[in-house]
Amino acid sequence: MTVRKQPVLGILGGGQLARMLALAAAPLGVNTLVVDSAADACAGQVAPLRLADWTDYATLEKFAAEVDVVTFDFENVPAETAHWLAERVQVFPDPRALAVAQDRLAEKTLFRECGLETPAFHAVDTREDLDRALASIGAPAILKTRRLGYDGKGQFRIKQLADADAAWAALGAQATAHGLILEAFVPFERELSVLAVRARNGDFRIWPLTQNWHTDGVLSLSLAPAPKVNALQQRAEELARILAERLGYVGVFALELFVKDGQLLGNEMAPRVHNSGHWTIEGAIASQFENHVRAVLGLPLGDTSARGFSVMFNWIGELPDAAPVLRATDGHWHDYGKQSRPGRKVGHATVCAQDAATLAARIGDVARALTREEQAMPAVRLLAD
Amino acid sequence: MTVRKQPVLGILGGGQLARMLALAAAPLGVNTLVVDSAADACAGQVAPLRLADWTDYATLEKFAAEVDVVTFDFENVPAETAHWLAERVQVFPDPRALAVAQDRLAEKTLFRECGLETPAFHAVDTREDLDRALASIGAPAILKTRRLGYDGKGQFRIKQLADADAAWAALGAQATAHGLILEAFVPFERELSVLAVRARNGDFRIWPLTQNWHTDGVLSLSLAPAPKVNALQQRAEELARILAERLGYVGVFALELFVKDGQLLGNEMAPRVHNSGHWTIEGAIASQFENHVRAVLGLPLGDTSARGFSVMFNWIGELPDAAPVLRATDGHWHDYGKQSRPGRKVGHATVCAQDAATLAARIGDVARALTREEQAMPAVRLLAD
Ligand SMILES: Nc1ncnc2c1ncn2[C@@H]1O[C@H](COP(=O)(O)OP(=O)(O)OP(=O)(O)O)[C@@H](O)[C@H]1O
Ligand SMILES: Nc1ncnc2c1ncn2[C@@H]1O[C@H](COP(=O)(O)OP(=O)(O)OP(=O)(O)O)[C@@H](O)[C@H]1O
Repeated sequence: MTVRKQPVLGILGGGQLARMLALAAAPLGVNTLVVDSAADACAGQVAPLRLADWTDYATLEKFAAEVDVVTFDFENVPAETAHWLAERVQVFPDPRALAVAQDRLAEKTLFRECGLETPAFHAVDTREDLDRALASIGAPAILKTRRLGYDGKGQFRIKQLADADAAWAALGAQATAHGLILEAFVPFERELSVLAVRARNGDFRIWPLTQNWHTDGVLSLSLAPAPKVNALQQRAEELARILAERLGYVGVFALELFVKDGQLLGNEMAPRVHNSGHWTIEGAIASQFENHVRAVLGLPLGDTSARGFSVMFNWIGELPDAAPVLRATDGHWHDYGKQSRPGRKVGHATVCAQDAATLAARIGDVARALTREEQAMPAVRLLAD
Repeated sequence: MTVRKQPVLGILGGGQLARMLALAAAPLGVNTLVVDSAADACAGQVAPLRLADWTDYATLEKFAAEVDVVTFDFENVPAETAHWLAERVQVFPDPRALAVAQDRLAEKTLFRECGLETPAFHAVDTREDLDRALASIGAPAILKTRRLGYDGKGQFRIKQLADADAAWAALGAQATAHGLILEAFVPFERELSVLAVRARNGDFRIWPLTQNWHTDGVLSLSLAPAPKVNALQQRAEELARILAERLGYVGVFALELFVKDGQLLGNEMAPRVHNSGHWTIEGAIASQFENHVRAVLGLPLGDTSARGFSVMFNWIGELPDAAPVLRATDGHWHDYGKQSRPGRKVGHATVCAQDAATLAARIGDVARALTREEQAMPAVRLLAD
């Protein structure tokens, strides 16, 4: 009898996304190998972990030889590393797609080329650029680093034109290394995200739109399917498909969108599974994690339909008491196995129900038990409408 | 900040049940440590594995020191080993419950004490016992080893009284070591199983009854919720609860039942998560694996309701092509990461749907694509009724 060799998925970065990818890969018979520079990277609790930083080519060489396909937990892997790996092993998404998503300027330029409007924006490389950009865009506006921003880091909100000096003091030093971008501040009605997946053979699917709420620039709460989206679902699907095809994208990605005057504006693209898609583990027939694994391994895609309604609470800094979630009907707990640290994503909980009113009641109960009414409130209100 | 120590669940045995337990434990923030004597035990792909046999007390001593709670993937861990561990660390289910379930005679005696009828049975220790038992029970009957039987192994079917010699030739040598039992052969209408879970605090829940079909003594197909069970669901729940309380049971267990003249007869008890409960991963709100982890760790139990209808195909010996299952709407693939071997359980697939007719169509399509019509047929028929 021939000895069977299972496919091995290599993941660059060993955080909670890698952890949840590994858990989704196992039932498919796919083993996972993770690379991270931290020995306590939380994916290492569920998959073997190789310690390396992104320039440790000796270790990466061995890693490439051990895996069949490489993907990302972390989009800010240096382009050189991604390209170097792509010469040795299949890498999905393609490093070129990664490069676009790493740069807010390239990303927004692409959005517009694909027919997705964006907030007004200008590249800012110098103090003079900032003044010109502010004169054109006006206040309020947001100055952001072009690269390496996440969870609202590397951003400065300019409330009035006089804040320009403070903004430059905060971020000017990064203008040369990472570049900056000034964006108009959009007084949006709501924030939505599209989770989409494209297979190696071009098959393309999106999950129902998700509505998101951020606190201090970090995702706090998601509700899916986003209520009352009407024609936006189809429009988002078209745009995501055009974008994915433009990039020859393979795998799951997220588009973060603002809704302003009922129209979609593109904020950013995450070239990976995304925090706003965690509800799909229990709330959709195939989760974003399973479909990402299926896509990058060349397997058929699973169904992206929702099973009902879901709300995801993000746990930032430290985990609250698990019991109220575990006791809630259709309540699901996700502890990433991390140490507490201010601002760190340490876990999430998803609560599901077959109808909006039941879900509102369930998350209301959970929130009260945790004294987190404020976190749950926007979804409770919307579900009660 | 205090360093957080995650709970560690120790599992004796590293097969697919341990593997699926480990995958369910991770989101709860529970790490898993597995003990098995085989270096390629498939749970070792998703959790650290310690190599030891059941008498390697040096390794088991270290294992006990590393874990918070011990449970079983395999019910035939020797009673001494289980008791020895229970003196060092919490073990759930209690080794006494394990001992009962390891012995078909003790098990059936307990069933009767709890009000659950069983096929007629007699202990058989000698050739003369066999004659006496056959005279009392009549043919057809089944001679089984009292201990260490699984997947129909250690059984001999006595079609007529003249088969007694052949039966003794096959199993008589095991009479002294394991004991034997003669059971009346029951021409049952259907086979059902109850999956039940009891928490440390006595909370008790059962999943909807599952209907099962065996081929050559091995589970081939399960359908849940079993159709048209009417009062049997409540009766099964009562019996399972009485049994669990009698044993002070903590964790998930299965009761395999025959239905004869509309009445339940107890066949056997599995003191662990069970093959007929694999559908609960996608088909129920909380799976048997998650609830077993919750129970043994002392966490609140999750909801055991079904999400719709589910059929599980067992893959024995080798895996068929995954694509038809991956392409099926609500089709879920489970590859245990094992090498092929005749008679070995190497994986399963679950297909779900919101209604019986849709499920019948889906499993019909999958079965046709795999030329496994025969395996699916009993469920297709029952769903079409
Ligand atoms: N131009 C804008 N107008 C209004 N609000 C904005 C704008 N840009 C960002 N925000 C707010 O800040 C949040 C985080 O911004 P952004 O997505 O740019 O940050 P990030 O650091 O890339 O975060 P993430 O981790 O979500 O990718 C947005 O979800 C939105 O709530
Ligand atoms: N007394 C009986 N009358 C009729 N059929 C029986 C009887 N005992 C066993 N069988 C058939 O054989 C199958 C396997 O028998 P049993 O459950 O005793 O075996 P096992 O080796 O313990 O299997 P498992 O792995 O399911 O625990 C049963 O599910 C049933 O289909």
